[in-house]
Amino acid sequence: MTDDERYMRLALDEAHRALERDEVPIGAVVVCRGRVVGRGHNLTETLTDVTAHAEMQAITAASETLGGKYLTGCTLYVTVEPCLMCAGALGWSQLDRVVYGAPDDKRGYHTYCAAPYHKRTVVEGGVLAAECAALMKEFFKNKR
Amino acid sequence: MTDDERYMRLALDEAHRALERDEVPIGAVVVCRGRVVGRGHNLTETLTDVTAHAEMQAITAASETLGGKYLTGCTLYVTVEPCLMCAGALGWSQLDRVVYGAPDDKRGYHTYCAAPYHKRTVVEGGVLAAECAALMKEFFKNKR
Repeated sequence: MTDDERYMRLALDEAHRALERDEVPIGAVVVCRGRVVGRGHNLTETLTDVTAHAEMQAITAASETLGGKYLTGCTLYVTVEPCLMCAGALGWSQLDRVVYGAPDDKRGYHTYCAAPYHKRTVVEGGVLAAECAALMKEFFKNKR
Repeated sequence: MTDDERYMRLALDEAHRALERDEVPIGAVVVCRGRVVGRGHNLTETLTDVTAHAEMQAITAASETLGGKYLTGCTLYVTVEPCLMCAGALGWSQLDRVVYGAPDDKRGYHTYCAAPYHKRTVVEGGVLAAECAALMKEFFKNKR
């Protein structure tokens, strides 16, 4: 297992926590020099708040852990491609890397805009994509 | 004074609160049927959190007041054109209207993407624009 897969698995653990609360199963972790400094999972229903996405909470948590608002030197792992709001937040945070699992052709930022991130941020998709996507499919199948 | 100007003046009051804390002076209010249901001003430095923009806090506050995560029937007033993150959040919240004061050619969403909002959301800019812009100019002049 690569380091990216290992951290994505932690993000998947967070996604499972969302699923347990009947929330859209998306999870995220922020890693800084091999250490998890922030975690989050989607809580929009529980908190009655459209801004309570996994990435937003992981960013806020990481900033609190590190004591600074910029997350340079960090990588954020998220199970599904970020939406426009989260991509914008990741842009502000100036992370080194954003690694996502499954693409999101409907709500993912790439359908709206090309370059939301800081110019130094490297973006990669497709890590454990099948597993991340399967969790989403299962959730929405049960909602129909 | 029009209703839009009156509510933008409340958003300007919020912006002044940010300025008092030496924060980038941007303020926002959410109005629902003539009633202010959410307020917020930029607190990114105070909270050490890039996600703590005025709009994000006003959305969260309005959802709490109204007891629902969607803000249909509401208008958000913000002194400066929303960034990509906030535009994405406003998109999720499904507001009826977004009214902003001064345009932001550097960080405003329009430089990154054309249509971040819900298809029903009406967007207007330029309300008390000079006053909103003057506050920003004053802040950044003192930072140099």
